[in-house]
Amino acid sequence: DIAQLDLGRATRRGYPEAIFCQGKTVDQVARIATVLVGQPQVALFTRVREEQVTALLEVLPDAAYDAEARLVAWPPVPPEPTGGPVLVLAAGTSDLPVAREALLTTRYLGRQADLVVDVGVAGLHRILAQVPRLRTAKAIVVAAGMDGALPSVVAGLVAAPVIAVPTSVGYGAAFEGLAALLTMLNACAPGVAVVNIDNGYGAGHLAAQIAAP
Amino acid sequence: DIAQLDLGRATRRGYPEAIFCQGKTVDQVARIATVLVGQPQVALFTRVREEQVTALLEVLPDAAYDAEARLVAWPPVPPEPTGGPVLVLAAGTSDLPVAREALLTTRYLGRQADLVVDVGVAGLHRILAQVPRLRTAKAIVVAAGMDGALPSVVAGLVAAPVIAVPTSVGYGAAFEGLAALLTMLNACAPGVAVVNIDNGYGAGHLAAQIAAP
Amino acid sequence: DIAQLDLGRATRRGYPEAIFCQGKTVDQVARIATVLVGQPQVALFTRVREEQVTALLEVLPDAAYDAEARLVAWPPVPPEPTGGPVLVLAAGTSDLPVAREALLTTRYLGRQADLVVDVGVAGLHRILAQVPRLRTAKAIVVAAGMDGALPSVVAGLVAAPVIAVPTSVGYGAAFEGLAALLTMLNACAPGVAVVNIDNGYGAGHLAAQIAAP
Amino acid sequence: DIAQLDLGRATRRGYPEAIFCQGKTVDQVARIATVLVGQPQVALFTRVREEQVTALLEVLPDAAYDAEARLVAWPPVPPEPTGGPVLVLAAGTSDLPVAREALLTTRYLGRQADLVVDVGVAGLHRILAQVPRLRTAKAIVVAAGMDGALPSVVAGLVAAPVIAVPTSVGYGAAFEGLAALLTMLNACAPGVAVVNIDNGYGAGHLAAQIAAP
Amino acid sequence: DIAQLDLGRATRRGYPEAIFCQGKTVDQVARIATVLVGQPQVALFTRVREEQVTALLEVLPDAAYDAEARLVAWPPVPPEPTGGPVLVLAAGTSDLPVAREALLTTRYLGRQADLVVDVGVAGLHRILAQVPRLRTAKAIVVAAGMDGALPSVVAGLVAAPVIAVPTSVGYGAAFEGLAALLTMLNACAPGVAVVNIDNGYGAGHLAAQIAAP
Amino acid sequence: DIAQLDLGRATRRGYPEAIFCQGKTVDQVARIATVLVGQPQVALFTRVREEQVTALLEVLPDAAYDAEARLVAWPPVPPEPTGGPVLVLAAGTSDLPVAREALLTTRYLGRQADLVVDVGVAGLHRILAQVPRLRTAKAIVVAAGMDGALPSVVAGLVAAPVIAVPTSVGYGAAFEGLAALLTMLNACAPGVAVVNIDNGYGAGHLAAQIAAP
Amino acid sequence: DIAQLDLGRATRRGYPEAIFCQGKTVDQVARIATVLVGQPQVALFTRVREEQVTALLEVLPDAAYDAEARLVAWPPVPPEPTGGPVLVLAAGTSDLPVAREALLTTRYLGRQADLVVDVGVAGLHRILAQVPRLRTAKAIVVAAGMDGALPSVVAGLVAAPVIAVPTSVGYGAAFEGLAALLTMLNACAPGVAVVNIDNGYGAGHLAAQIAAP
Amino acid sequence: DIAQLDLGRATRRGYPEAIFCQGKTVDQVARIATVLVGQPQVALFTRVREEQVTALLEVLPDAAYDAEARLVAWPPVPPEPTGGPVLVLAAGTSDLPVAREALLTTRYLGRQADLVVDVGVAGLHRILAQVPRLRTAKAIVVAAGMDGALPSVVAGLVAAPVIAVPTSVGYGAAFEGLAALLTMLNACAPGVAVVNIDNGYGAGHLAAQIAAP
Ligand SMILES: Nc1ncnc2c1ncn2[C@@H]1O[C@H](COP(=O)(O)O)[C@@H](O)[C@H]1O
Ligand SMILES: Nc1ncnc2c1ncn2[C@@H]1O[C@H](COP(=O)(O)O)[C@@H](O)[C@H]1O
Ligand SMILES: Nc1ncnc2c1ncn2[C@@H]1O[C@H](COP(=O)(O)O)[C@@H](O)[C@H]1O
Ligand SMILES: Nc1ncnc2c1ncn2[C@@H]1O[C@H](COP(=O)(O)O)[C@@H](O)[C@H]1O
Ligand SMILES: [Mg+2]
Ligand SMILES: [Mg+2]
Ligand SMILES: [Mg+2]
Ligand SMILES: [Mg+2]
Ligand SMILES: [Mg+2]
Ligand SMILES: [Mg+2]
Ligand SMILES: [Mg+2]
Ligand SMILES: [Mg+2]
Repeated sequence: DIAQLDLGRATRRGYPEAIFCQGKTVDQVARIATVLVGQPQVALFTRVREEQVTALLEVLPDAAYDAEARLVAWPPVPPEPTGGPVLVLAAGTSDLPVAREALLTTRYLGRQADLVVDVGVAGLHRILAQVPRLRTAKAIVVAAGMDGALPSVVAGLVAAPVIAVPTSVGYGAAFEGLAALLTMLNACAPGVAVVNIDNGYGAGHLAAQIAAP
Repeated sequence: DIAQLDLGRATRRGYPEAIFCQGKTVDQVARIATVLVGQPQVALFTRVREEQVTALLEVLPDAAYDAEARLVAWPPVPPEPTGGPVLVLAAGTSDLPVAREALLTTRYLGRQADLVVDVGVAGLHRILAQVPRLRTAKAIVVAAGMDGALPSVVAGLVAAPVIAVPTSVGYGAAFEGLAALLTMLNACAPGVAVVNIDNGYGAGHLAAQIAAP
Repeated sequence: DIAQLDLGRATRRGYPEAIFCQGKTVDQVARIATVLVGQPQVALFTRVREEQVTALLEVLPDAAYDAEARLVAWPPVPPEPTGGPVLVLAAGTSDLPVAREALLTTRYLGRQADLVVDVGVAGLHRILAQVPRLRTAKAIVVAAGMDGALPSVVAGLVAAPVIAVPTSVGYGAAFEGLAALLTMLNACAPGVAVVNIDNGYGAGHLAAQIAAP
Repeated sequence: DIAQLDLGRATRRGYPEAIFCQGKTVDQVARIATVLVGQPQVALFTRVREEQVTALLEVLPDAAYDAEARLVAWPPVPPEPTGGPVLVLAAGTSDLPVAREALLTTRYLGRQADLVVDVGVAGLHRILAQVPRLRTAKAIVVAAGMDGALPSVVAGLVAAPVIAVPTSVGYGAAFEGLAALLTMLNACAPGVAVVNIDNGYGAGHLAAQIAAP
Repeated sequence: DIAQLDLGRATRRGYPEAIFCQGKTVDQVARIATVLVGQPQVALFTRVREEQVTALLEVLPDAAYDAEARLVAWPPVPPEPTGGPVLVLAAGTSDLPVAREALLTTRYLGRQADLVVDVGVAGLHRILAQVPRLRTAKAIVVAAGMDGALPSVVAGLVAAPVIAVPTSVGYGAAFEGLAALLTMLNACAPGVAVVNIDNGYGAGHLAAQIAAP
Repeated sequence: DIAQLDLGRATRRGYPEAIFCQGKTVDQVARIATVLVGQPQVALFTRVREEQVTALLEVLPDAAYDAEARLVAWPPVPPEPTGGPVLVLAAGTSDLPVAREALLTTRYLGRQADLVVDVGVAGLHRILAQVPRLRTAKAIVVAAGMDGALPSVVAGLVAAPVIAVPTSVGYGAAFEGLAALLTMLNACAPGVAVVNIDNGYGAGHLAAQIAAP
Repeated sequence: DIAQLDLGRATRRGYPEAIFCQGKTVDQVARIATVLVGQPQVALFTRVREEQVTALLEVLPDAAYDAEARLVAWPPVPPEPTGGPVLVLAAGTSDLPVAREALLTTRYLGRQADLVVDVGVAGLHRILAQVPRLRTAKAIVVAAGMDGALPSVVAGLVAAPVIAVPTSVGYGAAFEGLAALLTMLNACAPGVAVVNIDNGYGAGHLAAQIAAP
Repeated sequence: DIAQLDLGRATRRGYPEAIFCQGKTVDQVARIATVLVGQPQVALFTRVREEQVTALLEVLPDAAYDAEARLVAWPPVPPEPTGGPVLVLAAGTSDLPVAREALLTTRYLGRQADLVVDVGVAGLHRILAQVPRLRTAKAIVVAAGMDGALPSVVAGLVAAPVIAVPTSVGYGAAFEGLAALLTMLNACAPGVAVVNIDNGYGAGHLAAQIAAP
């Protein structure tokens, strides 16, 4: 009566439903977890609050919890990876929570994925040093706040699609990530796919799809 | 002196530079075309105006021009397609110019691509009738204006990534495509990659990358 | 001196005034309740805070309080329903508070009303399974956040008016419900009437009017 | 290939599809009209341009054209009205095009409808003089630009739902109808259903649904 | 070193400087009060926080504090009124804090002023009952949130200027008072002067100037 | 049938109705003029287009037309002024159309009014040279675009109310007058009353009311 | 009477007044030119329209006109340069009009200035090839539209201040230069000074000030 | 792994990297400080929270902390100043935190800098009294909230560039500093360079660059 889980999603489209925990009560999240217990598919709980985690771990005691990514996953070990490699970039240290949410989502949806941190365009040598590695990826996620300029630079250097995640890092005219979002939508290099502000989950999901076998 | 064409782009990242003709003079476009004449790579001129087309056809007499997509391509015949199939959907008849820009871009960048028109969610049976076909595509482009609701529906039905292009079709609170853009960024189904309003070129480019061999 | 209750509203237009409790002090709400004690009409207190509820229950001890809908109603039992049936849909679990505010408002204003939860467009089979039931309603309220796409889909399936309530569920470019609001204003199906973000009260009131005998 | 008309709409939901002509070429509109020729249902072409009208009248020679409402309807005579009466109000003379689009839509969808012009709140006696007439309507459409204040006032006086259409009348901070739109969404009187800026078609459609037998 | 009080303001333009306390530390406010102690002019401290009040009352023990208006005034008794009468209207109970800030400012700047509460347009008889009284005022302040429709109605009824103060009362598309602000800037009746959202001080100051002898 | 002129407005509130000509057809304006012919009161037609002027001068041959202010007035000679003097300032030459609309409105509504041009804050000596003259006015209208800074400076120098009219002069982040509008709403000096962007009529009307005898 | 030229500006602050021609009539511009004829200082007319140029060249026959920059300058030859060198970068060919306005302004205000075109970040090797030259400049102007990412990259490479001019090049979510403006205000590299969208004049003026002797 | 400090920045472009502490954990900031311990360059930690300061002082015990500016600097004593003098103006007392962040940044980056407080345009004599001093500066930083009008006035009086920092001081239509930002971008005086809202760090950095020897 409070939810109709879309349990057929994995069969229908290859990737299971994730539970968006922001805006749900502790009790609602726990009841949803109970339904998922008996299911074969991976369960991801995104944007979890501390008190929801406690309740989830009572229902799914061996679930994995990543505090920085605010993600609970069950079963705790990601599946054996298939498909091509994914690379996740964080422009600055402050973009790490979003980047990690993407990283873990990609892994739990079945891809091999790595993370590179603090390669913003203010010190260009840092991203240039990564070019060979960038060219090995089948999909690249770039999380960036403030000016959101990194995806334009990366997309100009590689053949793989760049999934750009604007983050709410910044202040003033960053407008909670709006500035970075607009930058990315207007990337002067083609090959930039944009998702919602702070949507590490969505970026990781897209990366898993693009790098699928 | 007026341009430094990025001629190494095809080598560096697999897809050639396209010329954004809006905001350029007829003379500038013609001079750029002259430089491209001797090049081996595909040349795409996007958002061309009628008077630019005339000038382009003087420099590249056998170039292909699609008036609805506002696109000039040279050489006129797309390369033999490789990779997987791409499907382009137009939610309504008015979304055709953007959808065709995506369709042709995908083809000139080397993929096989088809178009399906007028399958908006107001008459849901139309998109439901396409489900088997949707599931054969490696990437799906969805152009939609007004409420921009079609990508959410499609992404819930397929495993392939959906590239959502908001169009400026509509009036009033459509705010020239902003409403559709926000809808797509907030798609309740994961797997939706968003590009700029009316950016059929960018959508087609991403589709070609995702469906690459 | 702090309020001039519009006590003639029920006589003048058939539905009593509701007290908007957000932005009022506990003391003000209690004083208003005191005036209403002697009145024959239904009293609804919307958007109540916990400390206001305590004060209200001192003045109106048998009032009904619904914590999820943040609504206090007196007398506690809704009137015997007249007119046609109303259906309230919540696109996701997180839309429940707004959906319940609509549901209860409709009932206290004299209509029979039911609730269906978690039928968002990401799993289309859920709403398709409800089509026969949707077609029995005289008015349908749809509460949806994020992309706000559900009302367009529902309005394309039924003859009754759809009252769309955007909710503030979501984050980033959801802009506290603005994205869903714009989607609904631009619904590609006609027959969608929009109310303010999170305005379950207003939606329920309209449903009661439309389904009136 | 350019359109898949939703011809089942009248059967499925009681009201036929309308053709949104803005953003369509003359040729596209004409081809759509050709398909509709053999159909039993009412055909409405909204937001038509002069050159589209010429083409339409070649295909449907006896179609009715209202220049102010920018509407073409066929067959030219509305059906015999059923259901309750509808009243359309225009706050000022400049709101007439939108008000007439609502008026004619309502009539072609089968209701009896009347129009009252220039009853804005700056001269309150004008709307007060209409109160008895307002109370006879089953649904009231109010078209207003600038401050958009008229729906709040009307909704406070009647039991029937008020369908508020913000118009783009005004300048400066009217922001092409945004000011009026926000006013209406925040109406301090309940019972106000809002549609898109300048959407007389949508308002008239909702009025026809609400006043249906 | 932290402030250069504009002590000549009363001489130069007839009304003394007021101290805007939001964004100042307790210590800064206290030091400013100390400078004002020896001055002949009225001192107004606006938007005070509780802890600032405590500090102010140590420096100016007999100052008057109005908690609802968040205003501290010294000397505590307003001057003997001159000029014409001012009327302050609050559309709803929730607009009282802003309305009282205007009321008290007007009085401390030397005018006679009265307050009328809860006369919003949803129950039009309430403002109509005040018309004779409205016509006696030299300036009328109207504080209103949500749709902000009251100033348009009042300005259509009287010869005196109406000073409209949008309040942040409301939610959702009220956008913290933006909706009411736009309504008032687009008032369909002339004679409406607008000040910033929640700026009761500015409204009261203007009323005092307009009603000056 | 196209208008219900509020002919009682002069009696009811001291100032006659003005006809807003933008958004009206030539025929509608002419018909309204015909009704006004027999009336004793001043008639102002604002925001007139050239073709409307031609039609108006046929109905009211001796009407006065000011092309810069886009204003037609009848009878052509303003009434003998009463009340106090009004001063209208244009920050730059480009603000002249709006400033003149205010100037003429004030004169036709019965006040004595003068104009001072090009006294923007970039060359501060120009406004400082006007201080004695500024202090003789009962109301000051300030029209300014771009940064809209002049009203803040003027209000800090005088006792009379300043009516600030933002103009759409500027480009880019001037956002058609929005920047100037926000500046004026946030004037750091009290005593600034704001009207809509480019609303010279409204500013002149307020000035006439404030400077009334 | 239509203008009070700020002729003392060159003396007072070292740089003469420029005439903003947008929004002025041909006649007004000509009259202003007449006043400037006898003056010793440089006169710049910005944002001129073709018909204004004709009138200007009648008053100042040997004035220099640059059609791309929409600038008229008199005397036609810039002064002998003093101070340090300035470099102006245009990210793309479409940014040339704004870049040239900056270039010429800097030269007419007395600095040596050069232009480099089409060095956007999509082909990073182009800007990297300029690093030695970038490091010789005392001030660098960067004109960029779409994502506006170039200033962040340049500022990370040099010690001199970067003056960033967002241009209105782009479409859709570029929002006429707003996207680029926000990018630049949020540059992740310090040392970026921002001016208004398309404000080549202001950028050139700042460059001249910064590179002054 | 959490950061790649851009330690070459001082060598490459003359000014060291600053650590943006907002959005970083206490642990992350401490680890970054540890890396900086052995470095020769100045380290600035901006927007520090109290708990970050405690951790920083454990790693760098003699670092200087300014609570108002929310800045930690190490080594604690700024370098001996070179280049020209910088002047920092705060329009009001509430702008002090931003002004001090600029002041200290400028000093730690090697310039001599002074602060002048509370010289807003509402009391114009205060800034006029500073004109001789203003004219001695090589660069002037102006921090202002609300209307943000001070930079326009200052830039009209001096030859040096004005760096304008909008602050989030104000309420309502100040929109957290947006109003002041737009004012400054549209300054009617040239010579105004704008940085992000509340970005005292960026303003101070630019001032140091402009006043460099
Ligand atoms: N962090 C997230 N961001 C965006 N979408 C999400 C997120 N987590 C889950 N979702 C999607 O949101 C949809 C609605 O969630 P729910 O409210 O749980 O029904 C689910 O079907 C998910 O696919
Ligand atoms: N939750 C709500 N949302 C929108 N309007 C409401 C709500 N609750 C009450 N109202 C209306 O708001 C008006 C103003 O309320 P009040 O401030 O109590 O005078 C009332 O007349 C109600 O009709
Ligand atoms: N003037 C109008 N405003 C809003 N919606 C409309 C209008 N005219 C037609 N429509 C709807 O827009 C939908 C999409 O139109 P089309 O592009 O013709 O497929 C149609 O199914 C109509 O229901
Ligand atoms: N308060 C500040 N405002 C704007 N930019 C800053 C601030 N503090 C540091 N920065 C810059 O922000 C960049 C990114 O910071 P980080 O996230 O620490 O890598 C740094 O390279 C700094 O140059
Ligand atoms: Mg970093
Ligand atoms: Mg269609
Ligand atoms: Mg769900
Ligand atoms: Mg009228
Ligand atoms: Mg009330
Ligand atoms: Mg001037
Ligand atoms: Mg280029
Ligand atoms: Mg002060």
